[in-house]
Amino acid sequence: ILSKRIVVLPGDGIGPEVCAEAVRVLKAVSDRFGHEFQFDYQLLGACAIDATGAPLPEATLTACRRADAVLLGAIGDPKYDNDPTAPVRPEQGLLGLRKELGLYANIRPITAYDQLLAHSPLRPERIQGTDILIFRELTGGIYFGEKGRSEDRASAYDHCTYHRDEILRIAHRAFRAAETRRHQLTLVDKANVLETSRLWRETVQGLAPEYPSVALDFLYVDNAAMQIILNPRQFDVMLTENMFGDILSDEASVIAGSLGLLPSASIGDAAALFEPIHGSFPQAKGQGLANPIATILSTALLLDHFGLLIEAECVRDAVQHALNSGVVTPELNPATRYTTEQVGSFITYAV
Amino acid sequence: ILSKRIVVLPGDGIGPEVCAEAVRVLKAVSDRFGHEFQFDYQLLGACAIDATGAPLPEATLTACRRADAVLLGAIGDPKYDNDPTAPVRPEQGLLGLRKELGLYANIRPITAYDQLLAHSPLRPERIQGTDILIFRELTGGIYFGEKGRSEDRASAYDHCTYHRDEILRIAHRAFRAAETRRHQLTLVDKANVLETSRLWRETVQGLAPEYPSVALDFLYVDNAAMQIILNPRQFDVMLTENMFGDILSDEASVIAGSLGLLPSASIGDAAALFEPIHGSFPQAKGQGLANPIATILSTALLLDHFGLLIEAECVRDAVQHALNSGVVTPELNPATRYTTEQVGSFITYAV
Ligand SMILES: CC(C)[C@H](C(=O)O)[C@@H](O)C(=O)O
Ligand SMILES: CC(C)[C@H](C(=O)O)[C@@H](O)C(=O)O
Repeated sequence: ILSKRIVVLPGDGIGPEVCAEAVRVLKAVSDRFGHEFQFDYQLLGACAIDATGAPLPEATLTACRRADAVLLGAIGDPKYDNDPTAPVRPEQGLLGLRKELGLYANIRPITAYDQLLAHSPLRPERIQGTDILIFRELTGGIYFGEKGRSEDRASAYDHCTYHRDEILRIAHRAFRAAETRRHQLTLVDKANVLETSRLWRETVQGLAPEYPSVALDFLYVDNAAMQIILNPRQFDVMLTENMFGDILSDEASVIAGSLGLLPSASIGDAAALFEPIHGSFPQAKGQGLANPIATILSTALLLDHFGLLIEAECVRDAVQHALNSGVVTPELNPATRYTTEQVGSFITYAV
Repeated sequence: ILSKRIVVLPGDGIGPEVCAEAVRVLKAVSDRFGHEFQFDYQLLGACAIDATGAPLPEATLTACRRADAVLLGAIGDPKYDNDPTAPVRPEQGLLGLRKELGLYANIRPITAYDQLLAHSPLRPERIQGTDILIFRELTGGIYFGEKGRSEDRASAYDHCTYHRDEILRIAHRAFRAAETRRHQLTLVDKANVLETSRLWRETVQGLAPEYPSVALDFLYVDNAAMQIILNPRQFDVMLTENMFGDILSDEASVIAGSLGLLPSASIGDAAALFEPIHGSFPQAKGQGLANPIATILSTALLLDHFGLLIEAECVRDAVQHALNSGVVTPELNPATRYTTEQVGSFITYAV
């Protein structure tokens, strides 16, 4: 029997709906396997600004620090989206949480599901069998460097910095993941232009002898942006810095045919957060249209993180069963009328 | 009768081969229309390092400054590629040339050719009719900011800066291009995270009233990386900063089905350079496999730049004729055996 505290941050838009289904799945898992999961709901994002004035309230941060894991829905609201220069914005909550919890490794599996090949904008024969694990550094680089304006506000700057230690800790994780997979690690950088990229390259290269079973290669980010589309099967584990990872992991998501399928884990040495990669999709809010699968698969990553590998497989099998049975939300099959809750129920009962 | 001086920088790998065909096409154009084009060959890249020790020799820079236009093949050699930390590298020649000539606007048309839809990794029905013009800022941002290491070399930094004037000059060009096209301009940025992006957004927004016929919209770069693949037809003119433009324009190139088709123009207030977007592809060097079309289409952009719009159309028509006739290099049709030179000849005679 495992006893764990999970903070749930439903967030904005469709976040609460998809989180509700994911929590049902986690409850089904704990019932079936006799674990004790305690759920503690907290505010983050636009809903937190509305309620408290701050995108990341102190209470949320404290609860997350004490938790064994955090499950996040999505954040963002159109009333803030239209003005990225507003002083208080929902994204600050997410960025602040990543930094405060030290969630330096964002891990995104990209899988082409056979049942959904028809949904991808890419030709099925190019993507069938794709299975990529992207490691994106999440608490450094240009996201968190000094930024500002000149006095006359006519110049702006953003500083990108990396320290070797920031690279080492995520690189070790990426190498270890490659050891359990197809033994291939691709570092994506822009070492022909950026000094930070050259530091990434030399640091990761320096680790390679510790992982003799892993073949390490390097790809410039512009080329990677092509190769992910031209031939995604060539990749096993990809490792990259924060900004490149933001772009490439969203780009790679098109392979799966729907953003609604893709989970992510953000891991630190003392904390872990799990969230779908999709946004808060405010247009769909409250209509039962949101696909809960990305969030449900994020709970599988959460269970993996707890060491509950069999439980995690159960969740993945239940999701496969829903896909095989065509129990999916309308964006995956306009002919079906299954709601968020119906898909969630089906998966919950299949666990 | 127009008299123009064109500096040709064949560069490395397949560069000399594709340049040779492009120069033949330009000669055919000048013969047919009675212009006088003088060609001045200079060194850039690995060949320049080998010959002079410098990737951008003084003589090359002087010749380019005096020229009416520069035609570039490609630069890069594997002996430098394997070590992006080497003190002297071919890319420095290209980056130096862009900076010295003030080539701040890199313009890349992305077109889905009907004859080549079968070549794209994307489903034909998604991309048919795609016609995007990407404006990438080319002399600012993180490429040219201060960069370096801490004293113990364990930290590295790259500074990204933009001044409003750097944004204005390329934004005006992008707006003007949109006026002659489908009247839509999309600014791609990361304004929810970067201060430089917020400056881009407010500066470009500030210009919008001067171009009332153009609809301006904004897209975050991670979303743009998805949308370009999911629905490329939604875009007309795209505008972005240097690093994002590097990634997105290479990504968008997959739409065309081959890198070998895509030209680019790099424009400044006093100079202009034209080059294929592909690299030096050293493996193919000297084998007649290189597709000369991207470089030939770059000469069409060069002719446009000289105001020779009819001549430019002639070149494009001749290229279409080659595509329609199946006179293409093997990467576009493994069943044909046309060489670089044969494709170049066909297009030259068709001009
Ligand atoms: C909301 C935004 C700040 C965030 C990021 O860029 O990291 C998002 O795009 C993501 O990838 O989680
Ligand atoms: C060679 C390299 C420095 C260059 C760049 O990044 O600008 C290239 O990728 C390009 O896009 O022309």
